[in-house]
Amino acid sequence: MTHRILVIHGPNLNMLGRREPGIYGSQTLAGIDTDLAAAARTLDIEVTCRQSNAEGEIVGWIQEALDAFDGIVLNAGAYTHTSIAIHDAIRACGKPVIEVHLSNTAARESFRHVSHVSPVALGVIMGLGPLGYRLALQALAAHLDRGSS
Amino acid sequence: MTHRILVIHGPNLNMLGRREPGIYGSQTLAGIDTDLAAAARTLDIEVTCRQSNAEGEIVGWIQEALDAFDGIVLNAGAYTHTSIAIHDAIRACGKPVIEVHLSNTAARESFRHVSHVSPVALGVIMGLGPLGYRLALQALAAHLDRGSS
Amino acid sequence: MTHRILVIHGPNLNMLGRREPGIYGSQTLAGIDTDLAAAARTLDIEVTCRQSNAEGEIVGWIQEALDAFDGIVLNAGAYTHTSIAIHDAIRACGKPVIEVHLSNTAARESFRHVSHVSPVALGVIMGLGPLGYRLALQALAAHLDRGSS
Amino acid sequence: MTHRILVIHGPNLNMLGRREPGIYGSQTLAGIDTDLAAAARTLDIEVTCRQSNAEGEIVGWIQEALDAFDGIVLNAGAYTHTSIAIHDAIRACGKPVIEVHLSNTAARESFRHVSHVSPVALGVIMGLGPLGYRLALQALAAHLDRGSS
Amino acid sequence: MTHRILVIHGPNLNMLGRREPGIYGSQTLAGIDTDLAAAARTLDIEVTCRQSNAEGEIVGWIQEALDAFDGIVLNAGAYTHTSIAIHDAIRACGKPVIEVHLSNTAARESFRHVSHVSPVALGVIMGLGPLGYRLALQALAAHLDRGSS
Amino acid sequence: MTHRILVIHGPNLNMLGRREPGIYGSQTLAGIDTDLAAAARTLDIEVTCRQSNAEGEIVGWIQEALDAFDGIVLNAGAYTHTSIAIHDAIRACGKPVIEVHLSNTAARESFRHVSHVSPVALGVIMGLGPLGYRLALQALAAHLDRGSS
Amino acid sequence: MTHRILVIHGPNLNMLGRREPGIYGSQTLAGIDTDLAAAARTLDIEVTCRQSNAEGEIVGWIQEALDAFDGIVLNAGAYTHTSIAIHDAIRACGKPVIEVHLSNTAARESFRHVSHVSPVALGVIMGLGPLGYRLALQALAAHLDRGSS
Amino acid sequence: MTHRILVIHGPNLNMLGRREPGIYGSQTLAGIDTDLAAAARTLDIEVTCRQSNAEGEIVGWIQEALDAFDGIVLNAGAYTHTSIAIHDAIRACGKPVIEVHLSNTAARESFRHVSHVSPVALGVIMGLGPLGYRLALQALAAHLDRGSS
Amino acid sequence: MTHRILVIHGPNLNMLGRREPGIYGSQTLAGIDTDLAAAARTLDIEVTCRQSNAEGEIVGWIQEALDAFDGIVLNAGAYTHTSIAIHDAIRACGKPVIEVHLSNTAARESFRHVSHVSPVALGVIMGLGPLGYRLALQALAAHLDRGSS
Amino acid sequence: MTHRILVIHGPNLNMLGRREPGIYGSQTLAGIDTDLAAAARTLDIEVTCRQSNAEGEIVGWIQEALDAFDGIVLNAGAYTHTSIAIHDAIRACGKPVIEVHLSNTAARESFRHVSHVSPVALGVIMGLGPLGYRLALQALAAHLDRGSS
Amino acid sequence: MTHRILVIHGPNLNMLGRREPGIYGSQTLAGIDTDLAAAARTLDIEVTCRQSNAEGEIVGWIQEALDAFDGIVLNAGAYTHTSIAIHDAIRACGKPVIEVHLSNTAARESFRHVSHVSPVALGVIMGLGPLGYRLALQALAAHLDRGSS
Amino acid sequence: MTHRILVIHGPNLNMLGRREPGIYGSQTLAGIDTDLAAAARTLDIEVTCRQSNAEGEIVGWIQEALDAFDGIVLNAGAYTHTSIAIHDAIRACGKPVIEVHLSNTAARESFRHVSHVSPVALGVIMGLGPLGYRLALQALAAHLDRGSS
Repeated sequence: MTHRILVIHGPNLNMLGRREPGIYGSQTLAGIDTDLAAAARTLDIEVTCRQSNAEGEIVGWIQEALDAFDGIVLNAGAYTHTSIAIHDAIRACGKPVIEVHLSNTAARESFRHVSHVSPVALGVIMGLGPLGYRLALQALAAHLDRGSS
Repeated sequence: MTHRILVIHGPNLNMLGRREPGIYGSQTLAGIDTDLAAAARTLDIEVTCRQSNAEGEIVGWIQEALDAFDGIVLNAGAYTHTSIAIHDAIRACGKPVIEVHLSNTAARESFRHVSHVSPVALGVIMGLGPLGYRLALQALAAHLDRGSS
Repeated sequence: MTHRILVIHGPNLNMLGRREPGIYGSQTLAGIDTDLAAAARTLDIEVTCRQSNAEGEIVGWIQEALDAFDGIVLNAGAYTHTSIAIHDAIRACGKPVIEVHLSNTAARESFRHVSHVSPVALGVIMGLGPLGYRLALQALAAHLDRGSS
Repeated sequence: MTHRILVIHGPNLNMLGRREPGIYGSQTLAGIDTDLAAAARTLDIEVTCRQSNAEGEIVGWIQEALDAFDGIVLNAGAYTHTSIAIHDAIRACGKPVIEVHLSNTAARESFRHVSHVSPVALGVIMGLGPLGYRLALQALAAHLDRGSS
Repeated sequence: MTHRILVIHGPNLNMLGRREPGIYGSQTLAGIDTDLAAAARTLDIEVTCRQSNAEGEIVGWIQEALDAFDGIVLNAGAYTHTSIAIHDAIRACGKPVIEVHLSNTAARESFRHVSHVSPVALGVIMGLGPLGYRLALQALAAHLDRGSS
Repeated sequence: MTHRILVIHGPNLNMLGRREPGIYGSQTLAGIDTDLAAAARTLDIEVTCRQSNAEGEIVGWIQEALDAFDGIVLNAGAYTHTSIAIHDAIRACGKPVIEVHLSNTAARESFRHVSHVSPVALGVIMGLGPLGYRLALQALAAHLDRGSS
Repeated sequence: MTHRILVIHGPNLNMLGRREPGIYGSQTLAGIDTDLAAAARTLDIEVTCRQSNAEGEIVGWIQEALDAFDGIVLNAGAYTHTSIAIHDAIRACGKPVIEVHLSNTAARESFRHVSHVSPVALGVIMGLGPLGYRLALQALAAHLDRGSS
Repeated sequence: MTHRILVIHGPNLNMLGRREPGIYGSQTLAGIDTDLAAAARTLDIEVTCRQSNAEGEIVGWIQEALDAFDGIVLNAGAYTHTSIAIHDAIRACGKPVIEVHLSNTAARESFRHVSHVSPVALGVIMGLGPLGYRLALQALAAHLDRGSS
Repeated sequence: MTHRILVIHGPNLNMLGRREPGIYGSQTLAGIDTDLAAAARTLDIEVTCRQSNAEGEIVGWIQEALDAFDGIVLNAGAYTHTSIAIHDAIRACGKPVIEVHLSNTAARESFRHVSHVSPVALGVIMGLGPLGYRLALQALAAHLDRGSS
Repeated sequence: MTHRILVIHGPNLNMLGRREPGIYGSQTLAGIDTDLAAAARTLDIEVTCRQSNAEGEIVGWIQEALDAFDGIVLNAGAYTHTSIAIHDAIRACGKPVIEVHLSNTAARESFRHVSHVSPVALGVIMGLGPLGYRLALQALAAHLDRGSS
Repeated sequence: MTHRILVIHGPNLNMLGRREPGIYGSQTLAGIDTDLAAAARTLDIEVTCRQSNAEGEIVGWIQEALDAFDGIVLNAGAYTHTSIAIHDAIRACGKPVIEVHLSNTAARESFRHVSHVSPVALGVIMGLGPLGYRLALQALAAHLDRGSS
Repeated sequence: MTHRILVIHGPNLNMLGRREPGIYGSQTLAGIDTDLAAAARTLDIEVTCRQSNAEGEIVGWIQEALDAFDGIVLNAGAYTHTSIAIHDAIRACGKPVIEVHLSNTAARESFRHVSHVSPVALGVIMGLGPLGYRLALQALAAHLDRGSS
């Protein structure tokens, strides 16, 4: 069966391409989502991409995965470092999550060194720019294949 | 006069019954609300139950209590540990609040050991499962009776 | 079978009614114990109430519960924040314990924010005054009923 | 060209006048906004005032400034101390921000001593009540004048 | 009655214009004091400006305000972060103090993030350059007007 | 009326004269108590001296002061640094307490730098050896004289 | 001369065999004491075994060693981590102490990682179950032999 | 030109397949290296794989990259958390490094939450098992392609 | 020989009687010095009293004691908590120092809980108001008598 | 079957007898190893003794135990406090380890109070000098006997 | 051109030779200054030596270097650890500073382990006694030679 | 007798001249060693220079000094901040050590602010580039001259 994967982009990622290109690169979010759609066809998976600035909305989308998705690629942006609600939602939905960051948060301000997502994620990919999303899709697909075989 | 009590369930509590039953039990939120409605009839109080995943919405409901409710039973879920906005809203509305948690947060991860709600709550009940809500209603009713006598 | 519940009042609770009424209220400990005896009859349980200022004596009473009681309602007073011996005794006796505090310790000095009892308690009730004991009895009886059914 | 300034009031500021007047004074938010409109006419700037209890909505408004405003006066309320998302939005929009607080947060609880807004703000004004907003407008106008001259 | 306001510039502020212009701007202290004298005429207040590199001298000037001034605008420079003696002097003199910093200390080294002045100040203005002094005068005059009306 | 003062010596003070004379001196506890009795006659007060190694017993003696003594001179020994129960007892009894230590605890191990007695004591005398007790009696008598005049 | 050794078992060790056998094993305290008596005969030393739940009583027993024993084997249980009074008593009695723990406290909760006994002990043996007591006797006898030779 | 990539496996990775398979999986290091060789052929890069338990040897290999390799895939194992020498070597060699961990170290003991490698790495991939190495090769090849184009 | 004692009053103590009488009492510094002169006659010692707001001046006075005084009574005020220079001066002069505070600093803000004077003082007296100075003189005289006999 | 035990001496232990005899005693490492060989004959076990100053070499020896030894007596010296690689090696080899220290590290500098070995050791013996090794052999033999019976 | 170097000795250094010779040696400050004058002749530089116990005076001397000196050798004594004002003055004057300490502060109390001078110094020399000053002159001269060549 | 001095260069110093010249300068290690050989001839001492990336090897070289050298100049590089084994080796060899760093580590990342070498070094020279080694030789020679005279 085709795996259904939800890609969630957190706060301020809608500003990509316009926001601090030195840190985040020049590609827009729409560009990234188009690339992921292309990659999905190659991997024979279904990808749904969403963006929100609201913690509560992201919590709701993760909960939704319990019934509607097989896994999540999550770049929770700034909420990575502050949201226990997202941490709880990941545990509640029970689906595998791969955490992605465009920049290498370990090389930035110390308040970005704590992640509430990591302890409940399957794995983490960071610092590799938009390619990180593609690698996460690949890894999640491989993980789901193993589980469903 | 009949006391009007607002019961607020925070983020992820809509997942009850489906979410980590080892920690949170198997009862659904709807089941809890039905039980609270029954308890309210016994205690001769009015109970209104709401759930939200959004911090801002919970802040708004607490503010609403200034005019529309006599007290609040609040399980702020993960926002308990991160939301100063909810803390401020409780102080702003000026109504008594009893904090409830289904699980014993003191026996869980250290990031759940800090509560921004407790310092502005009348009291706290935790670790007693859905019964905790019922005891909170009972205590709040007793508290309001003393005040209104 | 009738549940046997031990209520333990820790250090300085013998001063109730005489001690800082702004924090602890005006009811005496004898008054509270009389109320608990009445409540016990309603709940069809047996209640034994004791008070001590000595950590070692409280440790001994908790150990006693292994053979002589089905559960404990424990207000360890100041020892809540300092006694690992009481923590160990609770684990050693293996009986359910509900922790009670008259005041909301979370709204007081920071050295009262740590509890060595909570991590090994079934649940916690605080800030609700003498009513807290009564609710704890109720919750403990309900818990034991579930277990013995 | 007339400078366009966005004034953002964060959570619980809609309760002004009704909320802890000892700390926040007796003026309502509507009253403040009316005063700011008057001040704007004097300074020959355009002022737009908004209030929200939702972190995500405030993030969105700040992003909006990238295209629609020349500067922001921001009282992020409790989110000042917890929101990295707002911090990121300020950096993303690239417009000058003056942080305002009605009360002197340095003289209050320690959890109000950290600001995620300050490190990315042009300047900070606090403890001066509603007057603080007016001084912030004045300073922002002067700053923009220097830039546009 | 005309308000008498003492403006105190702390250590190294005599170097203004010569010292790290990227942080502190190019205006000299004499220039600032001239501007404040002009502003004082507009506000109909009396302003006295002093500078010292010595903590003890600043303590003495603040004490002097008990008899000779109605309020203080204080930029304590580096002593802001280390001097409890200045903190105590402010409390001893009992006059309102507005704390000013030319730079936004919250955006600089962490040892500049603690202020011993703020907890005893009426308000704080920082990051707005020399304009900050002028706004402080304005706010202090308004505060004294309210008190003396 | 003659003031009745209770002198409490905490754990290990019964070892005085035999225990680490380099730190605690060579006088025995009996010798100190004899000196205090002599001093009491001079000051026209009544002194009762007790020693205990048991925290709970010391708690009980402090409670006793509520009815039987006008003030306490307390050297709580090691319990100074660990006992919140003694802290609470002092608040509960409501009588003035002067804390005494033979050695200068500030010059010893860091775990002796925290005192749970000091925040609820009238004053503290330390490092002056047995003389410290005598000065404490003197100060307590003076304090009680002021109060009873 | 035959060495006289005092073995002190602290709080909750009277529960051995009944208490958390996964951590503490299934042997009773009486069984351990019998084994130690047998070992003592082999080593030609005198052993006295005592158990107490009360910190003050343990303090008294350690003081007693000044006159009545040549060394102490001490398992202070939970008081290991909280009692400065026991620390002081060991220094006051001046006799060599070997600290024993049945379990490896370094592999348990972080509040068991601090020992107030270790800094004043001759040595420490932990994690080796009841055998630890026997090895401690052996080491203490060897130490005393060296000293008395 | 074909990119030359050095893969370094740190301490204890030679135990793979034999060591805690619940955490590290059942594949051997030889198996992983064979897979990487195959992947290298697909990506048209040259891969050299080495393993060492010695910090100093790993430092030397990283230095070697200055002349002999175009990039490094580094799983520094336990040295990740303790070695500043490896951190310095990465900076000294100046070549891009992708940090890999088989397990999700963020979900393990707190002493594994700090990485001295991350702040000087291009990116990080963790928790994805042996696949992580392959994704790192892919990302490093893509990164080098961009640079060499 | 008559002992020569230097009494040093630190910053803001010249404000006594005018400064926060709730904390510091209503007696002026001149009044205290007069009382000390009287006490000195009784004790047959010479007392010299000085006050300064300047840390450097206090350092100089303490150095002076090396040749000109036999002991020091030092109330370093706010410098108690911040001055390592005073700490060093005490060690450099080598004369006994008794530290005095009018208020009980342990019951005030946490930044007053650290003293750089205490570790190099003979003893400490605090919380006993002006009487504290007198007791310090008495103790210092007794100490010097012991030394000179 | 005869148990094969590996004894590992860490960095600087080759200096024994020459290095700080006040802390480490006057016996040489060769002397200790000879004693252990003698003890091994009594206990009917095989002992292999090695020393290294290199963390990586110790890691390798511990790994070797997986195939070649039944248990390890490990004095990791200074690496005890810094090496997570040794911690991991112990877990990887899966054999019981008893940690030994000649001195009582708990009574020394604070950087010696953390052990990365203890949490994965069977037990710990410290402060008993060379005898500690012998007791460790004895305990390890007893442990292996229990397991192999 | 001859380099002009200012040597500043901080608080208590005027006590050299009389103050704790075990730590600071027996040479007087005058002796050191004479030696430095001799060394200056050899190095063909001009040296000016000053000492002060007052932080503000030292701040002023450092500011003076902006116009009158080419570099500073600074032993700020106790102010090293507490003075941000001196830190700021060094940055303000913009001349190279070499920090000197007679003793090795890293081997002394922990409050001497932080230096506010080091982060803005060219280099640091400590623990080498009076020779340290001479080496600092040598290094500063060499540094200025490089700059002026 | 001619003093024999061992110069040890730690990890990554073999990269000098090639590694981050902005921090470490452009001179190679061979160049430095040649300069030191020349300086040695002037000072009439023997110098032996070695470099290693391996902590264990450096430990061994320091031990060697017990018999073969009179003093050590040690730049332990990154091991400065992490190696207790090197700390112990310095104490074990008992010879004077001068710690050298090319850069001013106090002005760099916070993990470089702790040195395990400093507390056991005679003195420290840092931030003066290659000249620092030469000054260290000079100081060590002077120190040894004093000792051997």
